[in-house]
Amino acid sequence: MARCWLPIGKKTSLTKLSADVTPGFKGEEASAREATEELRGELIDLQRKLYAEERQRLLIVLQAMDTGGKDGVIRKVFSGVNPLGVTVARFERPTPAELAHDYLWRVHPHVPGNGEIVIFNRSHYEDVLVVRTNKLKPKSIWSKRFEHLRNFERMLADEGTTIVKFYLHIDRDEQKERLQARLDDTSRNWKFDAHDLEQRKLWDDYMQAYRDAIVETDRKYAPWYVIPANKKWFRDWAVMRILVDTLRKMDPQYPKADFDPTTIRIV
Amino acid sequence: MARCWLPIGKKTSLTKLSADVTPGFKGEEASAREATEELRGELIDLQRKLYAEERQRLLIVLQAMDTGGKDGVIRKVFSGVNPLGVTVARFERPTPAELAHDYLWRVHPHVPGNGEIVIFNRSHYEDVLVVRTNKLKPKSIWSKRFEHLRNFERMLADEGTTIVKFYLHIDRDEQKERLQARLDDTSRNWKFDAHDLEQRKLWDDYMQAYRDAIVETDRKYAPWYVIPANKKWFRDWAVMRILVDTLRKMDPQYPKADFDPTTIRIV
Repeated sequence: MARCWLPIGKKTSLTKLSADVTPGFKGEEASAREATEELRGELIDLQRKLYAEERQRLLIVLQAMDTGGKDGVIRKVFSGVNPLGVTVARFERPTPAELAHDYLWRVHPHVPGNGEIVIFNRSHYEDVLVVRTNKLKPKSIWSKRFEHLRNFERMLADEGTTIVKFYLHIDRDEQKERLQARLDDTSRNWKFDAHDLEQRKLWDDYMQAYRDAIVETDRKYAPWYVIPANKKWFRDWAVMRILVDTLRKMDPQYPKADFDPTTIRIV
Repeated sequence: MARCWLPIGKKTSLTKLSADVTPGFKGEEASAREATEELRGELIDLQRKLYAEERQRLLIVLQAMDTGGKDGVIRKVFSGVNPLGVTVARFERPTPAELAHDYLWRVHPHVPGNGEIVIFNRSHYEDVLVVRTNKLKPKSIWSKRFEHLRNFERMLADEGTTIVKFYLHIDRDEQKERLQARLDDTSRNWKFDAHDLEQRKLWDDYMQAYRDAIVETDRKYAPWYVIPANKKWFRDWAVMRILVDTLRKMDPQYPKADFDPTTIRIV
């Protein structure tokens, strides 16, 4: 597939990485939306087969700064897909019971089973992001987690789970506009959280934490896709494009009937 | 502590390893039972502190052949310990939902939280034991699991869980006697399962699988203790001894009151 994401390395500064570009896509909003719609039919079809086949599993990890578009992507990409077999698992601030266990304890029960697609809206990566930028744990703790995360995902992959991870990349100015929109628009007020303003102050720390998390855990068995996400129409198309390509490679098939349907008479 | 278990290496043949010896213990049954009773008081005290402290976690993995004494150890060692804070998680034949996920999916939710002791009666190790000896998965699958198991346990340890693993070692003749006792004694009939006879035929394969599993995953952060278990009194004492020593090292403390109790009047 044409590369519709941004490659990043150890020395990449995400603060300097444009979130406005549209790699792999020539054209403007209207044609992107059209392309996305065309792919939707295929996504719906592939998911049906995955579910019927009941043999493979797809885990989608969605990470972004506040207002980065996690909810938007889920709504725009998965609208029309049969909710039977597609689950969103949302990881918010951990509960006391969750904090009393290892940080993967609350995550593991939500990974997909055979035939399932699970979307992680935030994920185990928060434990090397918010935990790091807010100094909730010392470096001696969070720095070991990169290896845990790789090992956890490799185990899932070895046992038959396909994993794709998206970081929806917006810049600080774009976040400002989107937060302002949440204040201005009464239908979006409910999404405004004063806590987000505190986190916004840590922008540069977050960009460093994201870069490290991505570089440390971007592996063949669990690749990261950094999607420039200032332009929502590009973001939606790119995520759709990657998901359809991933599912095509998984190549799910309707199971063959273990009987001859022509010999059966319904009376 | 005096070593009350058998060290084993890559070339150890468990079929040739005596299950009758009593390393680290001089004396006979009566003095072992007495020593076990003395330790019980300390176990009860240490568990109370662990629970009150609510900061550390202890995971105990119990593995053995059928009739090896897993249930017996739990009853004999943990009798008298407050069930609040001590849980047994039993892993039987996986359900269809469990089989539809990675093999650690059913295990992870049961690991201990702060202040808790969890005993795994069978465990994630079955996925390199029964799975291997019964050829439920090809070698290409189960052989990768040794590394998963190490990684899983190291993650738990890094995040604050103490892990001890016991293999209760009986020999084939001892199993014969114990199975026969289940047939002869009506109060034990309920424990007899014809399936055990099928597994008994795979004895040598099991001994090889156990040896490999133990050698591959015996690590400082998650040690294996191979306990000669033909003599139940030695088995119980050795497990008790190791658990008490482990908890002593964890050194749980009652939390200090954050108020001055002498200043408070209950009216």
